[in-house]
Amino acid sequence: MSSKPKNVDIRTYSVPLNASYVSIKDESRELMAVWPDILRDLTTANRHNDVPDVTKWLAKVLQYNVPGGGKQRALMVVQAYKSFVPPDQLTEDNLRLARILGWCTELLQAFFLVSDDIEDHATMRRNQPCWYLCNGIGLTAINDSIMIEMCLYELLKKYFKTKECYLDLIEQFLSATFKTEMGQCLDLLSTNFGNKPNLLFFTMDRYNSLVKYKTAYYTFVLPVTLAMSFAGIKDPEMYRQAKTILLEMGHLFQVRDDYLDCYGDVKSTGKVGTDISEGKCSWLITVALQRATPEQRKALEECYGDSDPEKINRVKQLYQEIGISNTFAIYEEETHNLLNTHIQQISRGLPHDFFLKTLNRACSKIGRKD
Amino acid sequence: MSSKPKNVDIRTYSVPLNASYVSIKDESRELMAVWPDILRDLTTANRHNDVPDVTKWLAKVLQYNVPGGGKQRALMVVQAYKSFVPPDQLTEDNLRLARILGWCTELLQAFFLVSDDIEDHATMRRNQPCWYLCNGIGLTAINDSIMIEMCLYELLKKYFKTKECYLDLIEQFLSATFKTEMGQCLDLLSTNFGNKPNLLFFTMDRYNSLVKYKTAYYTFVLPVTLAMSFAGIKDPEMYRQAKTILLEMGHLFQVRDDYLDCYGDVKSTGKVGTDISEGKCSWLITVALQRATPEQRKALEECYGDSDPEKINRVKQLYQEIGISNTFAIYEEETHNLLNTHIQQISRGLPHDFFLKTLNRACSKIGRKD
Repeated sequence: MSSKPKNVDIRTYSVPLNASYVSIKDESRELMAVWPDILRDLTTANRHNDVPDVTKWLAKVLQYNVPGGGKQRALMVVQAYKSFVPPDQLTEDNLRLARILGWCTELLQAFFLVSDDIEDHATMRRNQPCWYLCNGIGLTAINDSIMIEMCLYELLKKYFKTKECYLDLIEQFLSATFKTEMGQCLDLLSTNFGNKPNLLFFTMDRYNSLVKYKTAYYTFVLPVTLAMSFAGIKDPEMYRQAKTILLEMGHLFQVRDDYLDCYGDVKSTGKVGTDISEGKCSWLITVALQRATPEQRKALEECYGDSDPEKINRVKQLYQEIGISNTFAIYEEETHNLLNTHIQQISRGLPHDFFLKTLNRACSKIGRKD
Repeated sequence: MSSKPKNVDIRTYSVPLNASYVSIKDESRELMAVWPDILRDLTTANRHNDVPDVTKWLAKVLQYNVPGGGKQRALMVVQAYKSFVPPDQLTEDNLRLARILGWCTELLQAFFLVSDDIEDHATMRRNQPCWYLCNGIGLTAINDSIMIEMCLYELLKKYFKTKECYLDLIEQFLSATFKTEMGQCLDLLSTNFGNKPNLLFFTMDRYNSLVKYKTAYYTFVLPVTLAMSFAGIKDPEMYRQAKTILLEMGHLFQVRDDYLDCYGDVKSTGKVGTDISEGKCSWLITVALQRATPEQRKALEECYGDSDPEKINRVKQLYQEIGISNTFAIYEEETHNLLNTHIQQISRGLPHDFFLKTLNRACSKIGRKD
């Protein structure tokens, strides 16, 4: 699978900070090299030879929805594994398993995206139409999303059944799924089920819970703790420390994502922002409401959560008046510094450089205009 | 929990065949007595005390969608457990666990029903409006359905984590979920995603696969093999024999369900049939196509899968002309007898009377008019 010469110490790939982008590009290629095998594993007709139409359909579902993203979570699993495992365990076989584990997180992500896009009435995802909008699929995409979800447990069973960490991996996926759906539920409750949102709900406390559940667990905590488990780490204190930092990173990541929903370039984000029209409890509106004059607040209440382009523009104009971009820049800078300090304070043998690199990637400026 | 006197040998409840209906009614009451504890387990605020709104919402979701059905699967888990376990293991504690395991199958069922009802554009379920049609919920019911799904694994973790069968139980639920969704996929492919179905697809082979995947696994195989696993049964041959018979029963059950979709009384089935208007690959249409004259086939092709009431009535009229009710009666009688024979042939220590009782319940005449 790998094109790296065998006698190179593979661990050095993850050490130098300034080499991290190169290493990510290489790793992304390595991940893609495993994908065809995974697709075959999940859709070979002889596994369910009495329903060939379904396996053929499943292959389409997986190919359209799984490999096309940034693979941030899969990359995080592999990078974390490389950083955590003792050098003698970093074999080609184990690396391949780490990549498969990475693909399991991408299957989870695809499951969430396919179903969330239906609920959110999204139109584009990863520069292509959302799956449910593809010819005639519609609401049956719900079923497809659940098949994607189940594929991850099929993969885990095939490759990790004999490993000590197997049960722990399953439980981590299930727990992250539950938390994420609770976060999505909080999100939907905040938007009043797609009706006019009640902006009184949009407090920073609520926003913080929302982000923790909806994003931070499965995007940051899950990939890293999966890798820790597969690497054989048992010390609960190490998990606790990792989790604390990863939740903070997840927060920063989601704030950026909210920012990009409004200010990002469609070409680089691959999706059209819908937070304002859908009335989402985003960081921008939460901060805007904290800082708005009574008049501005009244205007926000009138315009937020409406798909009328004029009202959307009015909200964006209000954001500008309130100076949200500047507040964001300050928040980002400060949180970044704070996280740097927290990472330096890690005491229990977790590799600082992995967390620093992850922080830098999560907060890279890709897709930001200003 | 139980109101039974302690010194009665609880096993005798499941032995006499003619007492099975009484025993089912009692057991249904016992199951309901456990439900409030389960609801509390899954929604106590201190488990997720930073998202009280979500736990409150989840309680509503669960209460509306889980306990109101016939609890056929939960009952099957408990009855199977009572039949399989050695008398000395049939303690109140273990019975309670069997009931909780039963509720896990009801959570799975509720997950399927909530999401399938969205896909199928159903209107009523268990004599009440489908969840997604309740005030303002709409597509966000997708998220609710996934929370229900995750609750089952939460319950398993809370009550079975320390048991030897824990991993096996999880894997059984995951595998049954995958199979069921594959069956639902086959169903949707057959109906051409809710467009005019291609009746050439409606062969008996396809129907058989559809039933096996979509219904028989999670409705018959899963409840019984869960109980076997919790009862400590390990012999693979016993599982194989049980599975073979349970798949046959599942087939008979689904054929009856298809029959009731058209000929059942709404008051007793609790739902309005949609198979004809949705163009489903049902037993009735599959048999009708096998027996139709070229003219009748043409008429079926014209009318099947259309919501126009006149066309629906025309299909029903064609069913009558073709004599489907009679074919059904013969099929039911013959399959019943065949299953009886197969059960008598069970050789590996599985209790015949449990399977006979299950057969009689699955084929009881409730809800049938003729």
